[in-house]
Amino acid sequence: MNSPLTIGMDFGGTTVKLGVCQGEDLIEVCEPIPTDRYPGVDPLVEAMVRDIDKLREKHDVVAIGAGVPGFVDFEAGFIYNLTNVPGWHDVPLKHILHQRTNLPVVVENDANAMAYAEWKCGAAKGLTNVVCITLGTGVGGGLILDGKPFRGSSFGAGEIGQMSIDANGRAGNYGNLGALEKYIGNQQIEDLARKRYANVGEDARPDDCTPRHIAEAAANGDDIARQIWGEIGGWLGCALTSITWILNPDAIVIGGGIAKAGNLLFDPLKRQMQCQLNPVFWENIQILRAKFGNEAGMIGAAALAAEEAQKMEV
Amino acid sequence: MNSPLTIGMDFGGTTVKLGVCQGEDLIEVCEPIPTDRYPGVDPLVEAMVRDIDKLREKHDVVAIGAGVPGFVDFEAGFIYNLTNVPGWHDVPLKHILHQRTNLPVVVENDANAMAYAEWKCGAAKGLTNVVCITLGTGVGGGLILDGKPFRGSSFGAGEIGQMSIDANGRAGNYGNLGALEKYIGNQQIEDLARKRYANVGEDARPDDCTPRHIAEAAANGDDIARQIWGEIGGWLGCALTSITWILNPDAIVIGGGIAKAGNLLFDPLKRQMQCQLNPVFWENIQILRAKFGNEAGMIGAAALAAEEAQKMEV
Repeated sequence: MNSPLTIGMDFGGTTVKLGVCQGEDLIEVCEPIPTDRYPGVDPLVEAMVRDIDKLREKHDVVAIGAGVPGFVDFEAGFIYNLTNVPGWHDVPLKHILHQRTNLPVVVENDANAMAYAEWKCGAAKGLTNVVCITLGTGVGGGLILDGKPFRGSSFGAGEIGQMSIDANGRAGNYGNLGALEKYIGNQQIEDLARKRYANVGEDARPDDCTPRHIAEAAANGDDIARQIWGEIGGWLGCALTSITWILNPDAIVIGGGIAKAGNLLFDPLKRQMQCQLNPVFWENIQILRAKFGNEAGMIGAAALAAEEAQKMEV
Repeated sequence: MNSPLTIGMDFGGTTVKLGVCQGEDLIEVCEPIPTDRYPGVDPLVEAMVRDIDKLREKHDVVAIGAGVPGFVDFEAGFIYNLTNVPGWHDVPLKHILHQRTNLPVVVENDANAMAYAEWKCGAAKGLTNVVCITLGTGVGGGLILDGKPFRGSSFGAGEIGQMSIDANGRAGNYGNLGALEKYIGNQQIEDLARKRYANVGEDARPDDCTPRHIAEAAANGDDIARQIWGEIGGWLGCALTSITWILNPDAIVIGGGIAKAGNLLFDPLKRQMQCQLNPVFWENIQILRAKFGNEAGMIGAAALAAEEAQKMEV
């Protein structure tokens, strides 16, 4: 049996993207909706519904899934708040979209949606216990445990970026000392690179210090750039080692911008984990690069919608 | 319906204790068997079977559960190795005890057995997501997730004592830097206390520096002792904050020797967690003292055996 057609919505800080998916295939994707052009909930919902209607004219979709960048009650489909989208707090998005479309709707945290995509049809397909981590401006995560999404008691599980790698370290967004994302977020990598190059003289520096530039420099044999990736791999390795001791997963899937550095990041990360884990844990774990890139949110949200639709059929 | 009678066995580093349990009630407990008097697997198994037979003469038990201090394949009931019991590696204990008794047998890691006891009939009874941590010479843990024990992909989950609280910190038993148990294990607390008192002059020091002595001193108003508990609470708080960000549990249950320090430990621990967590996580979590003490392993193993027996009836 083919997977049903569903709409996946990736609600980001700057744009909302909608597309029709079937399994891992994106059948049709709309133009991104810039969130700042539709301030407040109602105007943006109107824009979403226009896209949904447009997609439904051509495709027989059975459900809608939305991945949103913030704190969500998954059962109720209720958004508590979205960190970077003004006005979006206490929004019953599931209820609103269901009223407007008469389709089943699920609303999930975006990192959880990505984890679902990687587990359902991506790098960790078919595995039982999977930890997904997304590296970008912030560091997010999602968990699949005993063969299903694990959301915790108030749907907040998987906040890997908030874990401490140093009880006396840098403060995170919640006063949490040593928060991982304050070490390996994009901006932190850039700051680290500027500092390291400043130590050796500015003319050694690449044109810019974004993670992409540092990855290019490292790929071209720049020793300082390689050392920077070694440090980042070490910090990430510390957090993922702790997670492995706690959850003993089959796989850790790493996605998001800086995962594109590939082995520059993965090699020191794996070395770090191997020499800090019991062999039984290390031999049973795979460290995987995410299969999906920017489309992970849409595919994951659509896959969650497909599951919801199938549940309702039964 | 009453819970069935089962035998719980607590296999420790120095003694093996067997008892008949019904729910949380210990009906009859045998004299502890000193492990060093029965070196090797066969003699100790004989001693266990003698106790089992003795208990079965008086009680109609339906299954046997063993909690063991080491690495176990729970499904197979197979012991890979016991850290502090010479000769116990690669032992199919479930198979052996079943052959000798013709009863259903389960074999579980001891920290997981304690977690099961606290969840099934202890401090966290009826909750859905529970993290248990046991503080002693080492630091162990067990997880209940989505309403059932979570063991991970090779039955190793819950090794909270191996988590890092400092990426560049003290090395744990596996070369894992910043391992929590190297900060809050009994010996580490004693070392810390000696150091702190040495700084202010030895005559300020209690007779001894064990966790129990430091707790007594703190209870009697000794400022240095209180500060020591503050430091320990801070380290433990760092690890438990990270676990809360990852798992968003309903409760964390704290047991073992140093948990007896009570609020001396719990107050700074809770303060630390509250100021490093999103309010949604903090407001939904309970920090609980374990209900069971030394008997937790026996009760938990017996409860697991009762569950196994009920499964086989169906």
